Amino acid sequence: MLSQTTEYALRAMSCLAYDPERLTSTIELAEVTKVPSNYLAKVLQSLAQAELIVGRRGVGGGYKLNRPAEDITLLEVINSIDKVERITTCPLGLENHGSRLCPLHRRMDQAAAGLIKHFEGVTLKDIVTEPEATRPLCDTTRTAKVEMTFGNS
Amino acid sequence: MLSQTTEYALRAMSCLAYDPERLTSTIELAEVTKVPSNYLAKVLQSLAQAELIVGRRGVGGGYKLNRPAEDITLLEVINSIDKVERITTCPLGLENHGSRLCPLHRRMDQAAAGLIKHFEGVTLKDIVTEPEATRPLCDTTRTAKVEMTFGNS
Repeated sequence: MLSQTTEYALRAMSCLAYDPERLTSTIELAEVTKVPSNYLAKVLQSLAQAELIVGRRGVGGGYKLNRPAEDITLLEVINSIDKVERITTCPLGLENHGSRLCPLHRRMDQAAAGLIKHFEGVTLKDIVTEPEATRPLCDTTRTAKVEMTFGNS
Repeated sequence: MLSQTTEYALRAMSCLAYDPERLTSTIELAEVTKVPSNYLAKVLQSLAQAELIVGRRGVGGGYKLNRPAEDITLLEVINSIDKVERITTCPLGLENHGSRLCPLHRRMDQAAAGLIKHFEGVTLKDIVTEPEATRPLCDTTRTAKVEMTFGNS
């Protein structure tokens, strides 16, 4: 449903959301997200192109969020890789259909609408601070480190 | 969200559902579904491999549904092309997560569950017989023809 690339993008954005002011290197991001670094580099390019992150090259370079984590929804991250599209007119271009979707395309559009609603209501901040038994990307060591920043929940 | 290939598969299955006992040729399917015939041929192979349709080669050959239209859900068609997968354990393989999904993967799993619920409740029969202003794949001429079979709703 959501592609592997999209899931990797969500991992990368979550990682950056833990420390939004600091430039994080691709190597560190690859390590924390467990995404192969070549693949990750392409994902980061897409996220930068969508202006969700900003990067700086060279020694001490890396990426950081372009906006506060509470202002970036999961939907924006998903859409930057593989846009969830509503169906507004007949995909076959049938004249008698136009914007009166048939039962097939209405079902498909409802599914898209459901996904949009589900993901537009959640921000990166939500998923890294939510009081849960487990935190995104965090093994035991990293959990302890993160909880020093966000508080133990 | 759903791939183009998946949408084409749903079109092809809808077309076959209108006339489930008759072998429909790839040429006719391509014409009605408005899918390029080479592309469609591959989609039909996937559907046949998933045993949703059966085919016969040669003159008078084509494809038909392998089961009644009321026994094939949209979810089965979707899954035959691009399976909607639930997330049951941490995709990063983090030991402390295991099956206790973090807020990111829980949201992703909820979305998958929502899609499954949405599409498993609808059969091919539903979408070709539902009383709607427009019928899947049907321009004005085809609508008239189909309504002689299913009744004008």
